[in-house]
Amino acid sequence: MSKTIAINAGSSSLKWQLYVMPEETVVAKGIVERIGLNDSIFTIKYGEDQKYETIVDIADHDVAVKMLLDQLIDLKILASYDEITGVGHRVVHGGEFYDRSVIIDDEVLKNIEDLAEFAPLHNPANAMGIKAFKHLLPEIISVAVFDTAFHATMPEVSYLYSLPREYYEDFKVRKYGFHGTSHQFVAQRAAEMLGKPIEETKIITCHLGNGASITAVDGGISVDTSMGFTPLAGVTMGTRAGDIDASTLPFLMEKLDLNINEMVDTLNKKSGLLGLSGISSDMRDLEANSDKPEVRVTLDIFADRIRKYIGSYVTVLNGVDAIVFTAGIGENDAAIREQIINGMSWFGCEIDPEQNAKRGEDTVISTPESKIKVFMIPTDEELVIARDVEALRS
Amino acid sequence: MSKTIAINAGSSSLKWQLYVMPEETVVAKGIVERIGLNDSIFTIKYGEDQKYETIVDIADHDVAVKMLLDQLIDLKILASYDEITGVGHRVVHGGEFYDRSVIIDDEVLKNIEDLAEFAPLHNPANAMGIKAFKHLLPEIISVAVFDTAFHATMPEVSYLYSLPREYYEDFKVRKYGFHGTSHQFVAQRAAEMLGKPIEETKIITCHLGNGASITAVDGGISVDTSMGFTPLAGVTMGTRAGDIDASTLPFLMEKLDLNINEMVDTLNKKSGLLGLSGISSDMRDLEANSDKPEVRVTLDIFADRIRKYIGSYVTVLNGVDAIVFTAGIGENDAAIREQIINGMSWFGCEIDPEQNAKRGEDTVISTPESKIKVFMIPTDEELVIARDVEALRS
Repeated sequence: MSKTIAINAGSSSLKWQLYVMPEETVVAKGIVERIGLNDSIFTIKYGEDQKYETIVDIADHDVAVKMLLDQLIDLKILASYDEITGVGHRVVHGGEFYDRSVIIDDEVLKNIEDLAEFAPLHNPANAMGIKAFKHLLPEIISVAVFDTAFHATMPEVSYLYSLPREYYEDFKVRKYGFHGTSHQFVAQRAAEMLGKPIEETKIITCHLGNGASITAVDGGISVDTSMGFTPLAGVTMGTRAGDIDASTLPFLMEKLDLNINEMVDTLNKKSGLLGLSGISSDMRDLEANSDKPEVRVTLDIFADRIRKYIGSYVTVLNGVDAIVFTAGIGENDAAIREQIINGMSWFGCEIDPEQNAKRGEDTVISTPESKIKVFMIPTDEELVIARDVEALRS
Repeated sequence: MSKTIAINAGSSSLKWQLYVMPEETVVAKGIVERIGLNDSIFTIKYGEDQKYETIVDIADHDVAVKMLLDQLIDLKILASYDEITGVGHRVVHGGEFYDRSVIIDDEVLKNIEDLAEFAPLHNPANAMGIKAFKHLLPEIISVAVFDTAFHATMPEVSYLYSLPREYYEDFKVRKYGFHGTSHQFVAQRAAEMLGKPIEETKIITCHLGNGASITAVDGGISVDTSMGFTPLAGVTMGTRAGDIDASTLPFLMEKLDLNINEMVDTLNKKSGLLGLSGISSDMRDLEANSDKPEVRVTLDIFADRIRKYIGSYVTVLNGVDAIVFTAGIGENDAAIREQIINGMSWFGCEIDPEQNAKRGEDTVISTPESKIKVFMIPTDEELVIARDVEALRS
């Protein structure tokens, strides 16, 4: 029996989940928030609904990790540090280096830090989490699981922008894609639900959370995805604009007296569902206000952009066996799933309202007659991390 | 019998075509180039392959128009100015004012000039052409035919970007779409070829020239189109990038030490087929070099982006009766038409290579079995202008 911990480190947070492997049982999970600030919040959930919470100043990620491991021992979830057999870290950007999860050595850590150029908010924070665990558990295997890795298989035709080619060659400006672990996880489950070897399947996965992306998965391999050089591109998101005409930038910068960084910040943080509705970035708030015309059109735009990406990816795959919905909105918002699929009856897909009303578990939400299967599959990125640690440990 | 002249005025050029209406016969056509520069070039083609050409300094559009009308009389194409019964002007941007062609009065002219904000290169030039004809033919009806008008019917869900809503309300930042007269013209022909009332058709039109755009036409009405606030957005074009992640702009601006206007200029003039291939913006040059890997991937990207828009518009229409190719590349490049459609066999469309090899006339290029019809239809924007003048004259 081995215990693997899956880590998602932010600049002031550390989210974690402790697994017993290979059973894949979660024995504890928690989050440390406000690291480096006053009144940091330290939470562990374990056992049957048990919860440990304390508020205390936590200076940095090293302190947070030490406190976490010591508290796991105090709560008798661990007998000693030695019980931890592996640590897996979510890393946002793997650039062109990594098409799969890897054991973190000095070179990998350096690459992750160098890729901060592409993911300035995320990769440095991910690296802090990696270093904190390396300090405390220097002998334990440490694995990086990249958001970009699943998409690293995309062909040139998908990842190149129609820019001067030297922008790719000199600066690595290209489509990278994100949410890779999630797309990969639900595509694998979808192939199982189709009862076919994944090599023989064509699947379109819709990861719809506050960030949202659509991926074309051909034979288990990502061949195109809606996010781009950064997570700004693609469909309408909670606060992100998704695809827009780049010529709007100089026009708006002049009108609003913004510089380019402020402009892109606006596209990332004040646009999308929030900007369009003027109310909220949260689909639940919008659906509660869907009688308001500006909210109705916001929901219609959200569905339209997703549906258009699905249609475009049917051409990329030249067919599709299954469409999958996952993540916060994809798993819980039956109304938007129905709206998206009902607009595609020509394609031969049809929602079963009764099935679509179900929650929580992998569900076939299309009718038995539906030519294209539609699935709701809860994603589990932490489990992918734990599995990848186990796979690389042996 | 009436004679109508269709005008396309650029900042230093004036392209024209003289029609006998309602017969729709072209009796002469020509172009004045290098207006306002030394050695302006003045050309008239008429009769059976007859050509008049002279090189002379032409100071402005007024001089060009006077020279044109006088030369038409000298060549006995016109007996007098009075034979001209209408002048139609192509105008690039009609903003939200115009969803159809209109007779140009002072208010219309002012709106066209005010819309220079959205089309700084085109609308002022179009206005110069309008004013030159008004000076010389003050009593003759003058009609504006807008590139944007056909798309003015798009629903809010298509034309709104996922930006803060006030950017639309305050600054009219939205999708406008272009090539409207061409999309409208070929959609009408396609409905005739389908043998159905246009109201009952779902058609996707691909205008593929040096600029390129794809339109979803539902019952004869444009419901979505790939160009946006400006003609930069959408598919890969000769020198334009089409859709890219807006976050690439600040990144590249820093790397290349460009300001936002220089950056967008690069996206408009040095990107697309030219930037990707490093060779040329002209498909003929690329196809002659398609053994070079970077040219092969350029052609593949061009086809991929068009195909993806087609797929996305099949969702917008929830079906499609016909796909139409038109304009320079769309009419003449059988290889790219075949590549695009062959990648969509799942949709039930199939190219007939023999039919696809034909040139010049409206042709069904799909097989008789093809579920979706595929047409090649030469566009004729000048004829639309002449027809709209005639319609508004009576």
